Amino acid sequence: MHTSLGFVAPGYENVLALFESFLGGDPRYSAQLAAYRNGAPVVRLTGGPEMTGETLTGAYSCSKGVAAMVIALLVQDGILDLDRTIAHYWPEFAAHGKGKLLVREALSHRAGLMGVEGGFGLDEFTTAGAAARLAAAAPAWEPGRQFGYHALTIGIFMEELCRRTAGESLQDVYERRIRKPQEVDFFLGLPEDLETRYQDVLYEEDPSQAWVDPLSLEGINNNAPIGTIMELPNIRSVRAAGMSAAGGVGSAVGLARLYAAATTGVDGGKPFLTAGTVASMTLEQVWGLDRSSGLDNAFAVVFMKPHPSRNFGSHRAFGHEGANAALGFADPCYGLGFGYIPRRQEEGRTPGRAHRLAAEVRRAAASLS
Amino acid sequence: MHTSLGFVAPGYENVLALFESFLGGDPRYSAQLAAYRNGAPVVRLTGGPEMTGETLTGAYSCSKGVAAMVIALLVQDGILDLDRTIAHYWPEFAAHGKGKLLVREALSHRAGLMGVEGGFGLDEFTTAGAAARLAAAAPAWEPGRQFGYHALTIGIFMEELCRRTAGESLQDVYERRIRKPQEVDFFLGLPEDLETRYQDVLYEEDPSQAWVDPLSLEGINNNAPIGTIMELPNIRSVRAAGMSAAGGVGSAVGLARLYAAATTGVDGGKPFLTAGTVASMTLEQVWGLDRSSGLDNAFAVVFMKPHPSRNFGSHRAFGHEGANAALGFADPCYGLGFGYIPRRQEEGRTPGRAHRLAAEVRRAAASLS
Amino acid sequence: MHTSLGFVAPGYENVLALFESFLGGDPRYSAQLAAYRNGAPVVRLTGGPEMTGETLTGAYSCSKGVAAMVIALLVQDGILDLDRTIAHYWPEFAAHGKGKLLVREALSHRAGLMGVEGGFGLDEFTTAGAAARLAAAAPAWEPGRQFGYHALTIGIFMEELCRRTAGESLQDVYERRIRKPQEVDFFLGLPEDLETRYQDVLYEEDPSQAWVDPLSLEGINNNAPIGTIMELPNIRSVRAAGMSAAGGVGSAVGLARLYAAATTGVDGGKPFLTAGTVASMTLEQVWGLDRSSGLDNAFAVVFMKPHPSRNFGSHRAFGHEGANAALGFADPCYGLGFGYIPRRQEEGRTPGRAHRLAAEVRRAAASLS
Repeated sequence: MHTSLGFVAPGYENVLALFESFLGGDPRYSAQLAAYRNGAPVVRLTGGPEMTGETLTGAYSCSKGVAAMVIALLVQDGILDLDRTIAHYWPEFAAHGKGKLLVREALSHRAGLMGVEGGFGLDEFTTAGAAARLAAAAPAWEPGRQFGYHALTIGIFMEELCRRTAGESLQDVYERRIRKPQEVDFFLGLPEDLETRYQDVLYEEDPSQAWVDPLSLEGINNNAPIGTIMELPNIRSVRAAGMSAAGGVGSAVGLARLYAAATTGVDGGKPFLTAGTVASMTLEQVWGLDRSSGLDNAFAVVFMKPHPSRNFGSHRAFGHEGANAALGFADPCYGLGFGYIPRRQEEGRTPGRAHRLAAEVRRAAASLS
Repeated sequence: MHTSLGFVAPGYENVLALFESFLGGDPRYSAQLAAYRNGAPVVRLTGGPEMTGETLTGAYSCSKGVAAMVIALLVQDGILDLDRTIAHYWPEFAAHGKGKLLVREALSHRAGLMGVEGGFGLDEFTTAGAAARLAAAAPAWEPGRQFGYHALTIGIFMEELCRRTAGESLQDVYERRIRKPQEVDFFLGLPEDLETRYQDVLYEEDPSQAWVDPLSLEGINNNAPIGTIMELPNIRSVRAAGMSAAGGVGSAVGLARLYAAATTGVDGGKPFLTAGTVASMTLEQVWGLDRSSGLDNAFAVVFMKPHPSRNFGSHRAFGHEGANAALGFADPCYGLGFGYIPRRQEEGRTPGRAHRLAAEVRRAAASLS
Repeated sequence: MHTSLGFVAPGYENVLALFESFLGGDPRYSAQLAAYRNGAPVVRLTGGPEMTGETLTGAYSCSKGVAAMVIALLVQDGILDLDRTIAHYWPEFAAHGKGKLLVREALSHRAGLMGVEGGFGLDEFTTAGAAARLAAAAPAWEPGRQFGYHALTIGIFMEELCRRTAGESLQDVYERRIRKPQEVDFFLGLPEDLETRYQDVLYEEDPSQAWVDPLSLEGINNNAPIGTIMELPNIRSVRAAGMSAAGGVGSAVGLARLYAAATTGVDGGKPFLTAGTVASMTLEQVWGLDRSSGLDNAFAVVFMKPHPSRNFGSHRAFGHEGANAALGFADPCYGLGFGYIPRRQEEGRTPGRAHRLAAEVRRAAASLS
């Protein structure tokens, strides 16, 4: 079935119908949606006046799921052990009683290091200098004991662990070992020659919002002294550097293909992660009230897991959403890779559009199997 | 004081008044209510057009509290140790990194094994085959680290531990050592000759309900591929097998008498559990947001504990409620055994009818002591 | 800038404006507000018909923060170690499996000992007898595993640990080492000759409130058999004894000056706590749903920490609020000591008046630095 919106494979007609209902309900609504099943594309839709199939735009924390694919490779290679301490790879990190924090704990938001007073400079995030500032900081709680979303610093953790173990930047490993060979249309570091495809994320700041103390946990987590998280991908230098936490840009097809390539393989190829690697990376580590937001959250190693407030997939699903309610995930129960990117910021909790679309895709896959 | 509804002992008049207010407020409302104090019945009421004092009906997860009495006996006998691993008694369970999970952890909803993909067959639940499938499954989180209500599989845990330690089915131990000698009108396995007393639980399915992914944690926890939890006791084979998780049927008097027999003794007899057994079984193990439901919950070993959203008793109270808002508990602070079973499904959280009735019973007991 | 309300230093005009808006919005509203910055007073305001600058009144659990200053001194002196067990200092406490509970755990509401059945007598709280009853009690959960606000017994823990380590009552240590030398207008034990300054806390009991089971965790935590927590400071014998949990009385200036004296020093003097002591006392220990209240809470050693529902300060802030929504805290990020005491009980969660005033004070301090 082909329409001007793209195509859906037979059996996925209800996915199209739901997507069209969103388009019909809001004349500005614009989004990309894509899914792979068992390695082949089954949904590829773009709709609305503000986006085309060629659009690349910001996907915020979806970038974390992309970067986590590199972490998974390092684990699979045997050069990074989730059960070792961060300090084993990065001795300076032991300062301020942080010596016992495990890699799996830091990568599931348990470090208690949401940022540094004064914030990081925008061009500092992907540097070893940022890691050094983080290593020198005191934690907000007994390391490992609590969890709260580390909106930006979890990227610094991933990047520094990659430097220390692979001797190469996370962005370079991603480009060389994943993005190029798997032909993934999602970038941690957007090349200059693809800039013409980039379209700014559209969002509205709430003018009535109360003052956020830049030295509160919330302010530190948002890197408040420097600027808002929402503007990050719209800044050329940020998307050129491709910070792991929130600097990735791409298309929905790119996200879907990446998750498919990791778990089912694409175009007849083998998945780049083994089932064992996927299992160890996606076992849920923490769940409950998130110390940063006060909302409930669920995390495996870096990846988000579905939970009652964010029902994006089966019990084996893993992925990440972004601040604009973009969503990328794999669902091994159904052999699915899924990507969704709206042009304008949306609300990201169930029953958001992304979750409703994800449910229809799974429902279709379930009835076909 | 005797009425057509049954009787309440002197001092319990407010319990009757509250029960009558429920009857007056809803012409269909039908329920049984019973309480023992210091081993003697003090409340025995039945009201409404759809139930008699002879009615046996489903009490869903109240069955867990009943089955837990067998676990308590095994602990008391010294053949089951809450601080040993499940794998100590059941070596196959060690698969998929589950070797360190303790009995007390599994029996307080921390295993991360809410079910199996594809679900259990209705006649499979009480079999060693179900246990074998569970032992072979991968957990949803690091075993022991989180908790979430295991709506059906906690029964499989109890039953397999009983088989492995006592060499006999949990249902048989219950029948021989508890139900018969204590004359308890609550059954894990309803005999054919008592079928005439059984009346179906009445409930309404919500037709507007969203699709539940059968492979999501919610779907797996509900054994979604096979059917709804609500229909379970209404199926003859299920109540004949008497699955520990949700297959018990009985009367409110049965529940009240069971909890009284365990803690105070009934009819002048000794309690069948020692104070030490009760203490070790009812020490709260977990509390907080429940990973399965996203609501707050509190559990001891199997038994529910009162908490801010479910205030059924004093700090020493323990029991279990069912999906129809049936409730059975003991409150050692007041020497109480309590049972409540409605004919139609109700809402089970505070201030549900069961909790309001339980408060009046305790208030009466407090003013009499 | 001086007004009839008191004064605010230049730059703090918005604090005055907000305080005046509260006064304008409610003719009965009466409160004291004070702040020190880098050891010097920058805000000292009193407004409303029911209070003067001389008023001393109850501040309920703000007392816990005051008493915690003594605990901090004991830690600083090296005679109390947060990582030792309570039983190390107090051997009788090991009863009922409580032998492994650490000082830091008990002092962050993890003991599971909210009270004793029957309650403590009003004149018993500050005695070794209360401690003995607590030591002999069974915990409500596995000690250390959960946390829930110990509204009154955390004071007993602090006082007994002081007796056992310093050989002197906590109130005496506070008076001799802190209150007198730092000239703090806040008392743990109000002398008879200052009684003329005391004005009762004004509050309204909710007549429609449901029965609270005195043997429920809530009832025990409130010492229900004896009386309500709200009346405590209004009873002369309670404020004369100065129970650490809720018996302190004073002025807002007293609270602000105490927190300033601890962290920045006042009047050119040195702070009485070292930065290391502050760091070890104020590292967050627990966060999440509170087992006692069902609401979220965050605690360091005794001190409250800011969190999404109670945003009183920066990530380094620590303090305590009271049941009347009084608030005292230090914010080392801004060099602030803060005190707020209303005459009538208010709601204490964000965005309560205290939190809005605290935000304006910090905002002013931030723009001045």
